[in-house]
Amino acid sequence: MAQQNEPLTSWLDIDPASDFSLANLPFGVISTSASPNPHVGVAVGSYVLDMKELACHPEFYRVFDFIAEHGDVFSKPTLNAFAALGRPIHKQTRSRLQDVLSAGNSTYESFLRKDDYWISRIVVPAKSVKLHLPVEIGDYTDFYAGYHHAFHVGCMFRGPDNALQPNYTHLPVGYHGRASSVVVSGTTVRRPRGQILPQPPVEGQPKQPITAPCRRLDFELEFGCIIATPNALGDGVSVGDAEDHIFGYVLLNDWSARDIQTWEYIPLGPFNSKNFATSISPWVILADALEPFRTEALENKTEVQEYLKGEDKAVFDINLEVELKTSDGNSSTITRVNAKNLLWSFPQMIAHHTIGGCPMRTGDLLGSGTISGPGESERGSLLEMSNGGKKDVAVGSGAVRRFLEDGDTVVIRGFAGTGSGRVGFGECAGTIAAAK
Amino acid sequence: MAQQNEPLTSWLDIDPASDFSLANLPFGVISTSASPNPHVGVAVGSYVLDMKELACHPEFYRVFDFIAEHGDVFSKPTLNAFAALGRPIHKQTRSRLQDVLSAGNSTYESFLRKDDYWISRIVVPAKSVKLHLPVEIGDYTDFYAGYHHAFHVGCMFRGPDNALQPNYTHLPVGYHGRASSVVVSGTTVRRPRGQILPQPPVEGQPKQPITAPCRRLDFELEFGCIIATPNALGDGVSVGDAEDHIFGYVLLNDWSARDIQTWEYIPLGPFNSKNFATSISPWVILADALEPFRTEALENKTEVQEYLKGEDKAVFDINLEVELKTSDGNSSTITRVNAKNLLWSFPQMIAHHTIGGCPMRTGDLLGSGTISGPGESERGSLLEMSNGGKKDVAVGSGAVRRFLEDGDTVVIRGFAGTGSGRVGFGECAGTIAAAK
Repeated sequence: MAQQNEPLTSWLDIDPASDFSLANLPFGVISTSASPNPHVGVAVGSYVLDMKELACHPEFYRVFDFIAEHGDVFSKPTLNAFAALGRPIHKQTRSRLQDVLSAGNSTYESFLRKDDYWISRIVVPAKSVKLHLPVEIGDYTDFYAGYHHAFHVGCMFRGPDNALQPNYTHLPVGYHGRASSVVVSGTTVRRPRGQILPQPPVEGQPKQPITAPCRRLDFELEFGCIIATPNALGDGVSVGDAEDHIFGYVLLNDWSARDIQTWEYIPLGPFNSKNFATSISPWVILADALEPFRTEALENKTEVQEYLKGEDKAVFDINLEVELKTSDGNSSTITRVNAKNLLWSFPQMIAHHTIGGCPMRTGDLLGSGTISGPGESERGSLLEMSNGGKKDVAVGSGAVRRFLEDGDTVVIRGFAGTGSGRVGFGECAGTIAAAK
Repeated sequence: MAQQNEPLTSWLDIDPASDFSLANLPFGVISTSASPNPHVGVAVGSYVLDMKELACHPEFYRVFDFIAEHGDVFSKPTLNAFAALGRPIHKQTRSRLQDVLSAGNSTYESFLRKDDYWISRIVVPAKSVKLHLPVEIGDYTDFYAGYHHAFHVGCMFRGPDNALQPNYTHLPVGYHGRASSVVVSGTTVRRPRGQILPQPPVEGQPKQPITAPCRRLDFELEFGCIIATPNALGDGVSVGDAEDHIFGYVLLNDWSARDIQTWEYIPLGPFNSKNFATSISPWVILADALEPFRTEALENKTEVQEYLKGEDKAVFDINLEVELKTSDGNSSTITRVNAKNLLWSFPQMIAHHTIGGCPMRTGDLLGSGTISGPGESERGSLLEMSNGGKKDVAVGSGAVRRFLEDGDTVVIRGFAGTGSGRVGFGECAGTIAAAK
């Protein structure tokens, strides 16, 4: 917990408002014009540490002795090899990077600080770097643990008395998503075409769909978790061990085509309404960097099954927000909500996911489900804000939206802590292109 | 269509009842004690052609000139690199292998036939070979195109008038499955534990689940399709182009935990009830080898959307069967059904899957959904045969089953054609181990 109480100061010039403080040091995959093959980088202030170059430093084997034999993980085009080394190594790596970058650390400061040759190779301006999808995702699972979102949506369809299904408070409901369409922040999202049932249907007439571009395109504000170490087929991961299997966290936008979803999802769940794109933020915050921000999830009044009983403080106190920008220059922060608004934690989701023996692999992605709070300004989707498309949402200068229009950009941001202890994600952004 | 009319004869001794005739030549991934790194093989009769060795033959570059520069694809541990070369290359490779193995082919017979050194290296007894998962599966999607299965199951839950959901005849309903738990035939399947709602629930009492080993474990007889060439994010694949994206076909068992499914699946679809294991057969029959067996799918009286209008003969006339063996030596073929009992073809499934721009990748797996026929002896799952667990299914010598017991083995087999034109899959088998 040192990060919150004794702020670290760096000899690097780090803006105190930066998401990427010394207390953070998130990992990503970068390329530069000089080094065009994607490889590992670490964000710090307005810089990126080129970890591939760092592993070439003649003193690397000494300063990073605990990972020296695996230095090639930083030359890989994804974080999977680094993630697979496990949490103790991630923790040590982050901690040693803090030592190297801290002002006044007599043992490690000299590794870089006074060495112009290596500084110029290792410490590169973030602006000069291209960011890539940070992990190769074997499987992507999306949960539905955002209680208020599930309740709001349930109310629209079934009224408040039956808003939540009977299983909702007993297990973390989830479904398998599409790994191939998970993209890094900044990737354009094309409006999907698909089968849609024109509304309202004519009474007594058979339902007749059309094929058309989605008319009710939405975002979903989510928090994502990336798996570090695998479990074997047939073995479960207990809720108590699950933290050891977590690599880190990202912001996630589960883009959703509401009209396609309504027509397709019974009985096997969402499919084309989701699989056209899912965006994640480029920087993976290591699990250890979020430790100081543990807090309690929403109270679950149901007595949960034994395998789901875990720690009290298993979600995170993170400020999330969504900004919607239109192509003609309007913009508005349409949501501010805390990431703790979950009924289930990731350790519970992992324990549930594996109770039957399903194997998790390094790089697998789990989404929390849409995070909404109880208040009007805390809604994680336009579906909720517009009450199912019936109400305008203001996006500045008189512009309004019920769903997303072509050219709209959705930017999700999130951070925990303050000042030099601020741990933030940067942005998870995507702009809507017109349907083909 | 030459395979059906003019049977090929080989200088190799091929049992006329073999699934792996010269007209077939399916691809798989093998290892042997002499060559323990998994690599590519081709099944022919009771032999396997070691394709890694074949690519070392001094005449390979001449006889297989069209693929000579890609000879390393046969040393890879999966078929993905070969699959990615595209259908024209798969077709040429299979055709040239037929030339090499045919008796009386003056141009290519000498490549192997008279060469004891290379025969001993390339033509190995199937018994000496270990079979591996043939492809690295990026994403696995399971459809629900078996009309009779969907109807039977719908009748159990909603009666015959509402058995099918309104969308069923308009689009190939499907859901994202779990790629990490797809296993090759022969892999033991552990009975999953999970949340189950004890039946029958007490009237007026809240539903209270327990955590226990699955009590209603089932198989699902399916046909699987593997993708060869990818499409980019945002681009669709038209129904007319979809065949060009198909690598080949396998048998598939979508193991299902019915009691876990009942409690979990509303509203987001099956999850832990399916993700503990999916078995596929080890040999991938190339798309070209099934060309002679094209036939018409079930009639769809609904006028389908334009993007789903494809060829008339787009499914296959394949005899499928399921044998159930008990650990005490009883056994019975409990199902015989034709693979043509589908309302939707794979080209239609691919066109639907990509209509919104979802990218398919090389090695992706699509399941047809459970295949049942209209008759009592044509049911693709125990759920149907036992009428939801209410009726005994005979498995020989007085033994009966309603669902699978520990030690039971399910063997799926499938073949098309007859005699030397027989094109078969071999087996897709799995034995149930007790829950942990």
